[in-house]
Amino acid sequence: MIFCNTIGILPRPVRTFLETLPECIAEERQRMLAVVELSRLNAVHRTGGPFGAAVFESATGRLIAAGVNLVVESRCSHAHAEMVALAAAEQRFETFDLGKHHTTLELVTSTEPCAMCFGAIIWSGIRRIVTGATGSDAEEAGFDEGPKPADWKACLEHRGISVMTEHCRTEAREVLMSYRDTGGIIYNPQRTM
Amino acid sequence: MIFCNTIGILPRPVRTFLETLPECIAEERQRMLAVVELSRLNAVHRTGGPFGAAVFESATGRLIAAGVNLVVESRCSHAHAEMVALAAAEQRFETFDLGKHHTTLELVTSTEPCAMCFGAIIWSGIRRIVTGATGSDAEEAGFDEGPKPADWKACLEHRGISVMTEHCRTEAREVLMSYRDTGGIIYNPQRTM
Repeated sequence: MIFCNTIGILPRPVRTFLETLPECIAEERQRMLAVVELSRLNAVHRTGGPFGAAVFESATGRLIAAGVNLVVESRCSHAHAEMVALAAAEQRFETFDLGKHHTTLELVTSTEPCAMCFGAIIWSGIRRIVTGATGSDAEEAGFDEGPKPADWKACLEHRGISVMTEHCRTEAREVLMSYRDTGGIIYNPQRTM
Repeated sequence: MIFCNTIGILPRPVRTFLETLPECIAEERQRMLAVVELSRLNAVHRTGGPFGAAVFESATGRLIAAGVNLVVESRCSHAHAEMVALAAAEQRFETFDLGKHHTTLELVTSTEPCAMCFGAIIWSGIRRIVTGATGSDAEEAGFDEGPKPADWKACLEHRGISVMTEHCRTEAREVLMSYRDTGGIIYNPQRTM
């Protein structure tokens, strides 16, 4: 019984790029730049919103699973990059709790999580997150971050999830602004526009 | 490209019950009692957590899609009843925005949404939610609701989503307590326990 069938569904340019990556990415900066490249590829090929995410083993940088925003393509409002990456990691390890992995797993995401992904991060059992562009960058590009608690970082830390923000923010933000400037679809639900 | 493959994956007792329902359930109370029955069936058959949800057309009571909690069975921490029901409704209408439907759609859920589902409700475009048991009932049963804003109802109303809470709360709460008292799995991630 599979709820989230994320295996093999990433857009072709994203899959092609993933095949070029080494099994492990030791440096944190290089992990984020890889994730930003996922967001850029998704944006320029118009396969989804300008967001990318991936789950890595913190200590080794081993890439476990990757995701990009698939809301429009998959006709699923849940299909944010973080959700796709987390669901794929859970499928790979056949568990609903990534906290059970023998070593710390981290979610690297090109933009801060929205209100939904903030909650999903907690339920996934992931123990660390690293973010690039800020929520205000995403909003400047036209996206809605939703009513996430103002102290969202403290909320995560309180639950044992370490948080690093604004990592390679310049590069991550550039993808958002370029998407906006080239007329990419802003897929907020109609009601809130 | 399908992200959330929810068609045909509901547990058999749930599907069998759904087949007995009329196409439309005119009374709001009967809609909630049907959703509570989904939660009960999922709990007693040990096919998932004691939570059910469904999307209806508000005016007619036409049942659009149903969901139950599938976190453990599907090995997916996102697979809360509300997420399953919303994703199935989006698939049925082939849209990521249920707000585009020609008439108001509502999510009826046996328990108040958690922090993740709170965000997901906003992105789904749904225009009304009706809840049964409260977040505190769920917590009393051992589940974690997560850091949802204290003014979550106002947050939804502010975005044009009407909210009715504690509808058939007694019946909905009873399922949670029975699940707890019979030793049902509490699937919170390991880290937060």
